[in-house]
Amino acid sequence: MPSPTRSFSPTRKVLILGGGNFGSCLADHLGDSDHEVFLWSRQEEVVNTLNKSHRNPAYLKDHLFSANITAVGPELPGEDLIDQMDVLLFAIPTQFLRENLTKLHLHPDREKRPLLIFVNKGIEVGTHALTLEIIADTCGAEIAKAATFISGPSFAKEIVQRQPTSVSVASFTDSEAQRAALLFHQPHFRCYTGNDPIGLELSGALKNVYAIAAGAADGLGFQNNTRAMIITRGLSEMTCIGTAYGASPLTFLGLAGVGDLFLTCSSPNSRNYTVGYRLGKGESLDSITNTLGSVAEGVTTTKGLNEIIQKLGVQAPIATTVYDVLYGGKDVQTAVRELMELPPTKELDLPPTAGGPAKQLLKKLGLD
Amino acid sequence: MPSPTRSFSPTRKVLILGGGNFGSCLADHLGDSDHEVFLWSRQEEVVNTLNKSHRNPAYLKDHLFSANITAVGPELPGEDLIDQMDVLLFAIPTQFLRENLTKLHLHPDREKRPLLIFVNKGIEVGTHALTLEIIADTCGAEIAKAATFISGPSFAKEIVQRQPTSVSVASFTDSEAQRAALLFHQPHFRCYTGNDPIGLELSGALKNVYAIAAGAADGLGFQNNTRAMIITRGLSEMTCIGTAYGASPLTFLGLAGVGDLFLTCSSPNSRNYTVGYRLGKGESLDSITNTLGSVAEGVTTTKGLNEIIQKLGVQAPIATTVYDVLYGGKDVQTAVRELMELPPTKELDLPPTAGGPAKQLLKKLGLD
Repeated sequence: MPSPTRSFSPTRKVLILGGGNFGSCLADHLGDSDHEVFLWSRQEEVVNTLNKSHRNPAYLKDHLFSANITAVGPELPGEDLIDQMDVLLFAIPTQFLRENLTKLHLHPDREKRPLLIFVNKGIEVGTHALTLEIIADTCGAEIAKAATFISGPSFAKEIVQRQPTSVSVASFTDSEAQRAALLFHQPHFRCYTGNDPIGLELSGALKNVYAIAAGAADGLGFQNNTRAMIITRGLSEMTCIGTAYGASPLTFLGLAGVGDLFLTCSSPNSRNYTVGYRLGKGESLDSITNTLGSVAEGVTTTKGLNEIIQKLGVQAPIATTVYDVLYGGKDVQTAVRELMELPPTKELDLPPTAGGPAKQLLKKLGLD
Repeated sequence: MPSPTRSFSPTRKVLILGGGNFGSCLADHLGDSDHEVFLWSRQEEVVNTLNKSHRNPAYLKDHLFSANITAVGPELPGEDLIDQMDVLLFAIPTQFLRENLTKLHLHPDREKRPLLIFVNKGIEVGTHALTLEIIADTCGAEIAKAATFISGPSFAKEIVQRQPTSVSVASFTDSEAQRAALLFHQPHFRCYTGNDPIGLELSGALKNVYAIAAGAADGLGFQNNTRAMIITRGLSEMTCIGTAYGASPLTFLGLAGVGDLFLTCSSPNSRNYTVGYRLGKGESLDSITNTLGSVAEGVTTTKGLNEIIQKLGVQAPIATTVYDVLYGGKDVQTAVRELMELPPTKELDLPPTAGGPAKQLLKKLGLD
């Protein structure tokens, strides 16, 4: 039952940076909504094949992409293209963002600057910085304040099939969040706006740690009650960590929070869930990483999150247990038993809000 | 991997009222934890078979129940048994609660009164009263203030297998919630306490309406993104309705809220989900109700909820759509299209807290 597309926004020129799974699918969605889309890929083969046959040889291989997409690359687009764009959408891994933002030299002037949308997730290795902070460091506070972030339960292969999907769109600048929402909004791709990009970013990163835990429980043979427990107690931990960090607890109740957590924890397609599942089956992390080909994002995030938890002084027993299993050599069965033997506690014991890290970030943005 | 039982509470005498699926499973869990359990059933066959062979002929038929259970009935137990009990646990449908509580004549005196635990869910037909209000009406404010409520993602058949499970335990009286938590707590049955029984009760009732919506989406052939959207937007609606009612929004983030919502919306075993699924496949409500044998709870709750929504003046488009399909003759496909064509909005737009219904209830309890 594909729904018709409608124009919630006039036709825009959009450059999407990153021709991976999610970047390609968003390019298709925007092209499908009659926007003029440019898709940058670092892979020459992707650029050539997309332009020749509207296929991506690396991702969503079965899909015929919108004819409104022009692929560009493999070099990073120059000012000549960027200056024509109404929108820049970043779908490149967080670890490469600092380098690319530095190269792009975005115009600090509001009038001349395109709408900036970020869909990458995760914490920068080494610095533990959120994307918001990377933007502030490389492009300045004004650009970071206007940046918009999109996150939510959205498998790429279902988006290109126009399966009903919904996402959170957040920015410190309401009008920019609304612009991004109108650009993307379609009956089959619903956008909900919010003003807590810190909570949205933390949700997107942290959920992968709990997907490892959910996978491990399934690998150990536990059933529905247990999965619901891990998702809900995981959400509770994410909310406590987020609140101590300085995000709003209610953000975790939204599409980028519980929505994406639920999707990631329920899906054998998720790499993080798979790592957990195989750990639960008794495989070692080394063996799993070797066969997976690359490290699942949650494995890296678990390490950064453990340092954040220590610094914030919050209790997050599931995240700590995942850390102990991945990095402390703890046996999965022992880890589960120890978790379950914890005494009864209050369900939600939120720390005081407006914690340290967000305060410092807001100061950097001139929003304190 | 069954975990050992541990004593978090000394041995108690517990009378469970209601020998249905959930009452029986909780009787088994408490018997398994070495409590002395009496289980009241209105069905003579259930009483006799349980006492003779530790089997329940109507529910969880494959399970050998704890030898620590004595079945009583079919008449409602009299004062002679009740006076000996440390705990009374009510696992009878909400619609029969008023009548049974009136008959029981509970002792208003704190010292002589057992711990009272309620696990029924739903809104009373006709009055729209929560259980808390039914207790206040029949037993007085003191007893209602001390009542405890248990809810969470907990399939009975997994509990009797000692699958790791967790629940919320809420009461206006912290010490009573803690007593109930310690009674039930085991490594494989974790209890988390809270002090918002109104939010916990609303969660338990409202989730069934959204399970119908989730089932309908699956019946229509939608996939993971859509299910995550319905669960998350359903949670957002539940939170708005609950907040307008006077509950705490954060309660909906817990085990009784999102935990149970997730379980009910993901399970083909849920009667409410099944009603939705078959509606999505094009069957009429009459035909579904005829084959199901009885009305699924969510079908009744949808009607009561619709009146509550009108009275509170909140926006709850999914609940309203379920009502229009069940009671307004609206075609499911049209209903979905209209829902999806709604314009983009803010993700969470909470009404002012401490709404009317809770205020009146708190006044009745002397807690205003």
